[in-house]
Amino acid sequence: MARDIWVLHGPNLGLLGRREPALYGRETLATIDKRLVELGEALGLRVSTFQTNHEGALIDRLIVAMDAADGCLLNPGALSHTSVALADTLRVVTIPVVEVHLTNLYAREPNRAVSITAAAARGVIMGLGGAGYELGLHALASLLSARRRNSKR
Amino acid sequence: MARDIWVLHGPNLGLLGRREPALYGRETLATIDKRLVELGEALGLRVSTFQTNHEGALIDRLIVAMDAADGCLLNPGALSHTSVALADTLRVVTIPVVEVHLTNLYAREPNRAVSITAAAARGVIMGLGGAGYELGLHALASLLSARRRNSKR
Amino acid sequence: MARDIWVLHGPNLGLLGRREPALYGRETLATIDKRLVELGEALGLRVSTFQTNHEGALIDRLIVAMDAADGCLLNPGALSHTSVALADTLRVVTIPVVEVHLTNLYAREPNRAVSITAAAARGVIMGLGGAGYELGLHALASLLSARRRNSKR
Amino acid sequence: MARDIWVLHGPNLGLLGRREPALYGRETLATIDKRLVELGEALGLRVSTFQTNHEGALIDRLIVAMDAADGCLLNPGALSHTSVALADTLRVVTIPVVEVHLTNLYAREPNRAVSITAAAARGVIMGLGGAGYELGLHALASLLSARRRNSKR
Amino acid sequence: MARDIWVLHGPNLGLLGRREPALYGRETLATIDKRLVELGEALGLRVSTFQTNHEGALIDRLIVAMDAADGCLLNPGALSHTSVALADTLRVVTIPVVEVHLTNLYAREPNRAVSITAAAARGVIMGLGGAGYELGLHALASLLSARRRNSKR
Amino acid sequence: MARDIWVLHGPNLGLLGRREPALYGRETLATIDKRLVELGEALGLRVSTFQTNHEGALIDRLIVAMDAADGCLLNPGALSHTSVALADTLRVVTIPVVEVHLTNLYAREPNRAVSITAAAARGVIMGLGGAGYELGLHALASLLSARRRNSKR
Amino acid sequence: MARDIWVLHGPNLGLLGRREPALYGRETLATIDKRLVELGEALGLRVSTFQTNHEGALIDRLIVAMDAADGCLLNPGALSHTSVALADTLRVVTIPVVEVHLTNLYAREPNRAVSITAAAARGVIMGLGGAGYELGLHALASLLSARRRNSKR
Amino acid sequence: MARDIWVLHGPNLGLLGRREPALYGRETLATIDKRLVELGEALGLRVSTFQTNHEGALIDRLIVAMDAADGCLLNPGALSHTSVALADTLRVVTIPVVEVHLTNLYAREPNRAVSITAAAARGVIMGLGGAGYELGLHALASLLSARRRNSKR
Amino acid sequence: MARDIWVLHGPNLGLLGRREPALYGRETLATIDKRLVELGEALGLRVSTFQTNHEGALIDRLIVAMDAADGCLLNPGALSHTSVALADTLRVVTIPVVEVHLTNLYAREPNRAVSITAAAARGVIMGLGGAGYELGLHALASLLSARRRNSKR
Amino acid sequence: MARDIWVLHGPNLGLLGRREPALYGRETLATIDKRLVELGEALGLRVSTFQTNHEGALIDRLIVAMDAADGCLLNPGALSHTSVALADTLRVVTIPVVEVHLTNLYAREPNRAVSITAAAARGVIMGLGGAGYELGLHALASLLSARRRNSKR
Amino acid sequence: MARDIWVLHGPNLGLLGRREPALYGRETLATIDKRLVELGEALGLRVSTFQTNHEGALIDRLIVAMDAADGCLLNPGALSHTSVALADTLRVVTIPVVEVHLTNLYAREPNRAVSITAAAARGVIMGLGGAGYELGLHALASLLSARRRNSKR
Amino acid sequence: MARDIWVLHGPNLGLLGRREPALYGRETLATIDKRLVELGEALGLRVSTFQTNHEGALIDRLIVAMDAADGCLLNPGALSHTSVALADTLRVVTIPVVEVHLTNLYAREPNRAVSITAAAARGVIMGLGGAGYELGLHALASLLSARRRNSKR
Repeated sequence: MARDIWVLHGPNLGLLGRREPALYGRETLATIDKRLVELGEALGLRVSTFQTNHEGALIDRLIVAMDAADGCLLNPGALSHTSVALADTLRVVTIPVVEVHLTNLYAREPNRAVSITAAAARGVIMGLGGAGYELGLHALASLLSARRRNSKR
Repeated sequence: MARDIWVLHGPNLGLLGRREPALYGRETLATIDKRLVELGEALGLRVSTFQTNHEGALIDRLIVAMDAADGCLLNPGALSHTSVALADTLRVVTIPVVEVHLTNLYAREPNRAVSITAAAARGVIMGLGGAGYELGLHALASLLSARRRNSKR
Repeated sequence: MARDIWVLHGPNLGLLGRREPALYGRETLATIDKRLVELGEALGLRVSTFQTNHEGALIDRLIVAMDAADGCLLNPGALSHTSVALADTLRVVTIPVVEVHLTNLYAREPNRAVSITAAAARGVIMGLGGAGYELGLHALASLLSARRRNSKR
Repeated sequence: MARDIWVLHGPNLGLLGRREPALYGRETLATIDKRLVELGEALGLRVSTFQTNHEGALIDRLIVAMDAADGCLLNPGALSHTSVALADTLRVVTIPVVEVHLTNLYAREPNRAVSITAAAARGVIMGLGGAGYELGLHALASLLSARRRNSKR
Repeated sequence: MARDIWVLHGPNLGLLGRREPALYGRETLATIDKRLVELGEALGLRVSTFQTNHEGALIDRLIVAMDAADGCLLNPGALSHTSVALADTLRVVTIPVVEVHLTNLYAREPNRAVSITAAAARGVIMGLGGAGYELGLHALASLLSARRRNSKR
Repeated sequence: MARDIWVLHGPNLGLLGRREPALYGRETLATIDKRLVELGEALGLRVSTFQTNHEGALIDRLIVAMDAADGCLLNPGALSHTSVALADTLRVVTIPVVEVHLTNLYAREPNRAVSITAAAARGVIMGLGGAGYELGLHALASLLSARRRNSKR
Repeated sequence: MARDIWVLHGPNLGLLGRREPALYGRETLATIDKRLVELGEALGLRVSTFQTNHEGALIDRLIVAMDAADGCLLNPGALSHTSVALADTLRVVTIPVVEVHLTNLYAREPNRAVSITAAAARGVIMGLGGAGYELGLHALASLLSARRRNSKR
Repeated sequence: MARDIWVLHGPNLGLLGRREPALYGRETLATIDKRLVELGEALGLRVSTFQTNHEGALIDRLIVAMDAADGCLLNPGALSHTSVALADTLRVVTIPVVEVHLTNLYAREPNRAVSITAAAARGVIMGLGGAGYELGLHALASLLSARRRNSKR
Repeated sequence: MARDIWVLHGPNLGLLGRREPALYGRETLATIDKRLVELGEALGLRVSTFQTNHEGALIDRLIVAMDAADGCLLNPGALSHTSVALADTLRVVTIPVVEVHLTNLYAREPNRAVSITAAAARGVIMGLGGAGYELGLHALASLLSARRRNSKR
Repeated sequence: MARDIWVLHGPNLGLLGRREPALYGRETLATIDKRLVELGEALGLRVSTFQTNHEGALIDRLIVAMDAADGCLLNPGALSHTSVALADTLRVVTIPVVEVHLTNLYAREPNRAVSITAAAARGVIMGLGGAGYELGLHALASLLSARRRNSKR
Repeated sequence: MARDIWVLHGPNLGLLGRREPALYGRETLATIDKRLVELGEALGLRVSTFQTNHEGALIDRLIVAMDAADGCLLNPGALSHTSVALADTLRVVTIPVVEVHLTNLYAREPNRAVSITAAAARGVIMGLGGAGYELGLHALASLLSARRRNSKR
Repeated sequence: MARDIWVLHGPNLGLLGRREPALYGRETLATIDKRLVELGEALGLRVSTFQTNHEGALIDRLIVAMDAADGCLLNPGALSHTSVALADTLRVVTIPVVEVHLTNLYAREPNRAVSITAAAARGVIMGLGGAGYELGLHALASLLSARRRNSKR
């Protein structure tokens, strides 16, 4: 039975391809999302994607995901550094959430080294560009099959 | 003549009952709101309740409350710690606003001890769970009748 | 059977009425205490009050309260911001303690926004003037009857 | 050929006239916007104005402006002090953006002296009230004609 | 009757044209001053300009300006970040003073984001290069005619 | 009619003469107090002196001084650096209080450069040894006669 | 000839046995004191013990100890973290003082890692429970016999 | 042609299985290394592993890796938080290095949220336990084949 | 034989009478200086006064004072908070220097509570208005006669 | 049956006797170690000693101690202030470890007041010179016999 | 052809020989300058020296040096720690500037460890007394001949 | 009689020539060492060189140098910023040690401006590339001949 994975992208990620390409690469979000859907199929995962510039909409979506999805990839964009509210939602969510960042937060301005939301996620992958999402999908796939095995015993 | 009290709940408060019950209790927001409406009736106050995960929607609502309500109970959730914009709205609002927190902010992580919005509220009640809203409603009732007495003179 | 509530006031609270009336109001501590005793009677609570400017005396009193009282309202005054010793006592005390401040600490000088003692209290009520003590008494009354109900089961 | 200038106002600016008049003046936002449209006509600029209390909506709008407008006046209100996401959008936007503040941020509370968004704008004008927007419009007019001259060569 | 505007430039501004041209532009101070005098004539303002690398000389000059001029444009250069004494003088000066910076202080090194002097000026214009002075002159012209209108009533 | 001046010495001042003589001098507190009484007589002031190691006792005494004395010399000793409660009492006291320190606080360890209580005193004299008290007595004498002259008009 | 050792316990130490037993152990202060007196007899030391919740009383006692005792074990409790006055007294005291803490201050909350008073003591023993006092008594015994040997030469 | 990947483990990683299993899991380092070698074979990568508790040995090894390996997985353990020297080595190394942490650094004590070495790595994977190394190996495989493709053009 | 006392006033003190009179009083510097000369005559001291807005000139003057004067009253104005160079000069000067401030630095903005120069002066008198200089002159008179007495022995 | 106690000395302790004797005393490490071996014999403990200037070697040794020793005295020298890695090892070690410092860390430079490793040790003894090790050995002897008694029951 | 080297000394350096000789040595500035002129002759450099206590004069001189000299030795004295303006001048100057300090800034008070100006100099030599200037002159000689060699190619 | 100078290079200095050449130059360490040996011969100094990436090895070597060498040039690399242990060794060493850095620490990232080890060295030379070592050798030569002259008297 296929599992549902929701991929949630936060503010400014819709600008990928136009945004400081030296830093964020030339790929658009559509391309990344398409690859994730295909990889999901290969892994037996139904991948849905969503982008918003609104903190509130990201929180709303995560709350729905609690009941509707089996796992989540989350790139909160700059909200990582500021949103205590989003981090609070993550603390309630019981499905595994992996936070993904295209760039290496530690290698940028000091205020970006802090991720308030990452503190409430299961794991973090950063600095590996669009490929980071794919690694995250692999990670969720493993976590979910481990969970299934455990629950079968 | 009945007064109007608006009860505004910020991000993640819709999750009450599911959210870290050891910390936030097992009551849902619906139960709390229902008790507030009933208590309001006993005190001669018309209580309306509202929950949102969007900072902007909370600000919009507070601005409407300036003209439509006589007092306000506000639980800004995690926005307490981050929203200068919401605090700015509170500084314009002329009706009494009491900030309520279910948990004792001082007894939690250091960054939660700071409340930017509380600095612009009339009073603060925290750490007393759902009962804190009821105390807040009592406080507003007193403030409003004191005001009425003063304006009659 | 009536419960015993001790109301403990810290440094400078004996000056109420003389102390920056724009900030702290014109009521004296005697007036506040009298109202609390009366309200206590209405709620079936025996209210005793005590004021001291000595940190040590406040600690001594709290330690006696552990065995002699059923609940406590505490306004530590400026000791809130400095007394780790008083906060330590609060951590040992097992009866419910509600911290009350006449003014809204968050709305004052930055160093007053921190309350070391509040971190060890059950709940905090602030910015609501003398009425804050009355709300605190209501809160204790509820907590004690909830406790009694629980212990009867 | 007329150029398009978008004027974007952030949280609480709709309250102008009601908000701490000693600080923000008695003019409403409608009056300011009207004067900007008229001044725009005199300068050969088509001025459109927009106000929102939602960070996400401001970001959405700025992203549209990238393609639809030739320049932008932005008053992010309190988001100046908190929104890394909005500053990130500004870093992508290629049209000139001038940040305007009615009050002098440096002359207010310490936390208002920091503007995260200004760091990503072309220039900043502050403390000159509603007239600041008009100076900003003049600045954009100069920048755009200089640009045109350069691109003609 | 023509008004007197004094334009005061602080340390290192005499180096314009030679100083990090990518940051400060290729215009010399003489060119900027000449344009200000011409614009002043158009606006009915007598513009005098002055440059010094001495904090004390800038203070001396500002004190004279109190009685001899009707308004002032001040670019304190790096003294913005360090001179409490100059800021103190500005607090005594009763004529309107607009602080101008060629670069956007918020977009540079962290220690340059703080302007001690700006906190004591009427308004601030920054990041708009030499044109910032011209906008400042327009701002002073408006302020002075508004003042005259008020004093006539 | 002779005025009453109370001289209040805080913790460890009873140790003068034994305490780090290189820093605090070899004079005992009794000698200093005796000289103050004599100087008071010469100036028409009745000088009473008091020393305690208890913060609470110092606060109690200051509160009595509000009604019983016309002016006060206060050396809070190390409480200068820690006692918000004592500073709060000073804010209520309406008679002039001059804070005296034997040593120059600015010339010692960094944490001694801060005086919480001095912020609430009328003036401060420090680093001049026992003579500092005598200067303080002169200062109070002037302040009181200026006050009397003003109140006679 | 027997030496006199004073054991001084600060705020909340009278609560031992009742206070967070997982942290402070189940032994009462009386038991600890009794063992110290017995160990003192074995070592030829006359041990007297004293407990107070008053900073001022601890200072008073230490000052008496200067003349009446040959050494001191001091557990200032939470005053370690806040009392500059007590540390000042320790700087005057010439007999050896060993500071003892039941818990390991470094292993607790960050603000407990700082001991203002320890900086003025001879040595510090912490984290070894009630046994820490006994080690301290051994340490004083050695220090005193070393001193005696030295003074005999 | 097989590529060489070096897996370098820093201080205390040899303790895996014995070290706080709730946090670090029950797998030993040998098991993790074995799985990496097997996965490497599947991906056409020759994996060598190395563990040391010596910062200097880790630096020595990384310097050799520059010439002997094609990519590197590095878990610096606690040296992440302290070793500027190791980060400096990473800045010289031209082969891709992915930093791996078993736990989510952001979810632990504040001082662990900072990674000095990560700032000099290509990417970071954390919080995903032993599986994080496997994801890192996948990431290196992709990076190396992308590189090969590019260099072939 | 008359002693020479130099009174040195730093930046903005020439503005006394015009500068925030609620804070600094209505007396001009000329009046204060005149009173000091007269008081000096009474005390057998030749008083010379000097005011400058230039840090360098103040340093130059202090260096001359080392050889030409017997004591110095110094009000460095805002340079107190910023001039390490002036403090360095004070460390070389061997004649007694008393720092005087008209206002109580501790009662003003936080950055004014720090006096870099005071740390290098003999003593400090502040918050007592123009009278503070007179107390300072008395203090110098005592210091100089004590010195003379000592050197005669 | 004799227990094994390992005494581990960190960087620069081999220099004892030559290193700032006023601070660290004139005894060499060899003398201290010899006394510990003798005292160990008296207490039925086999004492082995080890000194190294290498953080990695200290970690290696502690890891071996986990299986080979029954208790440990550790003086990490300056690594106390910097080595997160050593502290991590201490968190894994299950035998009791007492940290010893010759000097009183609280009485030295501010950066030495912090001990990262002490936070992970059982107890700390400091400021008592070489005798501190002997007290530590006594402490371990008690801890081990208490443990044996408990395990026998 | 002889090159011109300007040696610029900042505040208080004229006091050498009189200023804390234990720290700064007993040599006067005249002696140091004389040795530099002689050494210059030996190296084929024309050395001119200049001392001022005025920040502005130092800036003026450095600006002239840009065109009149080939290299510069600069000891900004205490201005190193405070003068952003002087550092800005150094950023414009294109001739090599070596900053010299007589004392080792790192070995003194914490605020002296920071050198704002050094950040804009080519190199820094400190702690080697008057000899530091001579090393600086050697350094400039090498830099200038390297430059000449390069420009000849 | 020739003196022995030890040149000790810390972590990553073996990478010179490969490491960020724009910053550290293109010279290898071997070239620098060779030039130092030659210069040593000219100055009558026997120069030995040593490089290690191990903090412990650097400490070991310095301790040997105390007895085997007459002076030392030390470039601790990144250990400058982190090694309290190395700085402690320097405090014991009695031969003169000059710290050398190829780059100007003040001109780099903020955390590199701090040198813990420099605080314990005699002098510091930085920002002058490989030539800095040669200047350091000259400095040691002077110091040693001055010492010899002094000891002959």
